[in-house]
Amino acid sequence: MSQALDPVGLAADLIRRPSVTPADAGALDVLASALEGVGFTCTRLPFSEPGTPDILNLFAKIGTGGRHFCFAGHTDVVPAGDPQSWSVDPFGGVVRDGLLLGRGAADMKGAIACFAAAAAQFVAKRGADFGGTISLLITGDEEGPGINGTVKMLDWLEARGETLDACVVGEPTNARMLGDMVKIGRRGSLTGHLTVQGIGGHTAYPHLADNAAHRLVAMLTALIAQPLDQGTEHFQASTLQISTIDVGNPATNVIPATARASFNIRFNDGWSGAGLEEWLRRTLDGVGGHYELEVKVSGESFLTPPGAVAALIADAAEAEIGRRPEYSTTGGTSDARFIRRLCPVAEFGLVGLTMHKADEAVPVADIAVLTRIYLGVLERFFAG
Amino acid sequence: MSQALDPVGLAADLIRRPSVTPADAGALDVLASALEGVGFTCTRLPFSEPGTPDILNLFAKIGTGGRHFCFAGHTDVVPAGDPQSWSVDPFGGVVRDGLLLGRGAADMKGAIACFAAAAAQFVAKRGADFGGTISLLITGDEEGPGINGTVKMLDWLEARGETLDACVVGEPTNARMLGDMVKIGRRGSLTGHLTVQGIGGHTAYPHLADNAAHRLVAMLTALIAQPLDQGTEHFQASTLQISTIDVGNPATNVIPATARASFNIRFNDGWSGAGLEEWLRRTLDGVGGHYELEVKVSGESFLTPPGAVAALIADAAEAEIGRRPEYSTTGGTSDARFIRRLCPVAEFGLVGLTMHKADEAVPVADIAVLTRIYLGVLERFFAG
Ligand SMILES: [Zn+2]
Ligand SMILES: [Zn+2]
Repeated sequence: MSQALDPVGLAADLIRRPSVTPADAGALDVLASALEGVGFTCTRLPFSEPGTPDILNLFAKIGTGGRHFCFAGHTDVVPAGDPQSWSVDPFGGVVRDGLLLGRGAADMKGAIACFAAAAAQFVAKRGADFGGTISLLITGDEEGPGINGTVKMLDWLEARGETLDACVVGEPTNARMLGDMVKIGRRGSLTGHLTVQGIGGHTAYPHLADNAAHRLVAMLTALIAQPLDQGTEHFQASTLQISTIDVGNPATNVIPATARASFNIRFNDGWSGAGLEEWLRRTLDGVGGHYELEVKVSGESFLTPPGAVAALIADAAEAEIGRRPEYSTTGGTSDARFIRRLCPVAEFGLVGLTMHKADEAVPVADIAVLTRIYLGVLERFFAG
Repeated sequence: MSQALDPVGLAADLIRRPSVTPADAGALDVLASALEGVGFTCTRLPFSEPGTPDILNLFAKIGTGGRHFCFAGHTDVVPAGDPQSWSVDPFGGVVRDGLLLGRGAADMKGAIACFAAAAAQFVAKRGADFGGTISLLITGDEEGPGINGTVKMLDWLEARGETLDACVVGEPTNARMLGDMVKIGRRGSLTGHLTVQGIGGHTAYPHLADNAAHRLVAMLTALIAQPLDQGTEHFQASTLQISTIDVGNPATNVIPATARASFNIRFNDGWSGAGLEEWLRRTLDGVGGHYELEVKVSGESFLTPPGAVAALIADAAEAEIGRRPEYSTTGGTSDARFIRRLCPVAEFGLVGLTMHKADEAVPVADIAVLTRIYLGVLERFFAG
């Protein structure tokens, strides 16, 4: 145990397992065996539920109690897409011109390899009896429905009385260069489905009808007329995007009786899902007429106080690369929204420029630097 | 020849021929034989064209040159719909409680029978040598695509050097009571198909996208923001009705790149189709961004000066029923929009309350009154 662990080699090995969600394809075995080689204890956590894919997850732990630092991430990846658009085998784990290429290189097998290598180096220096606990909480259900992954692992941890004191999620948070950005929260997401009922008729006799499409246009105009807010200290302005409008009336001389639209709101910490729904209904009522609104809040906005984990990351990154990442709350959702219920959490990983695209790749040099930054985070966390 | 011709019996016989467009089902034979019985010369005008149904039409004429008065109409009818919703056989030609029931009673086999009976009475009084010409121009393609009907009959008349001096179209122009309304024009109709191109994206990153649905909503809002006009002397205000909006994006977290809508404008004599298209493009340009607009003008608005045929009808109706019909330009299109190129034309027929509905019916008494009004029109026209 406490051997050196080559993060580039491990990342390439992980890429060679085509763990396209919900498949595991042996990826977690590769990771578990590398972690066991440096002294971790690994627990496979398979979860399933009727109507959802069976998922394999992994919880790996080293240490002797005390404060518990957790690295969280996922080994599942999105499909490679058209193989013709790749210049290499997406599951070959090829290194070319200083780049590690393959599906998952950025999102986020590369960062998982950095987790493992940083933990191995930390334990090699300080010994397994360093007075704390380090864990890796790795799901195979982040790119999928997310039902049999992180949420159930956290329930499992809580049921065992396991507490976390800090967590870094290794999503590719950097837009262009390693060190751009630490994510300290995420916006919430609300989806609305709006159905407007009017009275159908003939376009030659509009006074006998109540055009549902006209009322829907007025309602949508009211929803997008003003920005929802101007942003908050750590968040961009909340945004509402209409995703679809559908009337489906093929007859150009017929006034439609029903019209539907869907929209998605990404909202900052100035709003709650419930507060937004209230605003939506008030705004639609202001336009008037009969409508039905179905609202689904898939995640509330959250913010980790920048003083907690985020500062450890920023300090470690600044020490490595000479500039301090900015704190940000941009972008889509991540499993950090679940973990934040248990402990302070921030996100920092590789450069996401090519994630989910053909020829997904990360510089090999970045893998070494990210490993040293994660090591710096562990050193700072366990220095206290 | 010059026998009495019973308009109620003829209307019932016509209803008994289920001439659901494009079928003739013998309806024009029934009419031709009644007209030949009172001295008319009948010409069948079958027209066809690849991709459209074959249509039978009828031109019937009596007289000796001189001024030419034409009655125009159609024997084709819309389908009966669900027979369960009728209290009688829709093609039975039943008289019950003073009503003639059946598909086409109001629109417009009843009025065609009145044409024939009025012409027969006029010729019976004045003789076939009355110094003018009376014709019936009857199509089987008014409720259908209208390609093999009135337009081609008018071309055929022009090719033969036949000129018309006045025309009454027998559409059911009266909303509630016989004598309500003479139609002296019709609004034009323009259909627009609008496609907006934006840039697709993810709802979490709206700044990287250009939401086509938002721009379409802004464009439609601009189109419906203001009334097109306040109406003109003889016309209602022009109206724009959105008939459909279709994005068809099932993913609520995806910003759509393309959005489509269609709309129909019914416009008065303050506009031309070309002028409206110019206004549409100016309005859409004002919103900005890339769009494609396809415009189809299916009919320009037209107005017959109220002094011409309309006054003959109003005078005859007032003499019969003691009140003067109002001049109107409301409602959908009719074949009058084609005929007006050849001569002054106005529309006057039975009460349209039940047209295109189950239990379509007209009072038997109205058929007698309308026959006398049409006779009054002929007397006034040929008195000069
Ligand atoms: Zn990811
Ligand atoms: Zn009609």
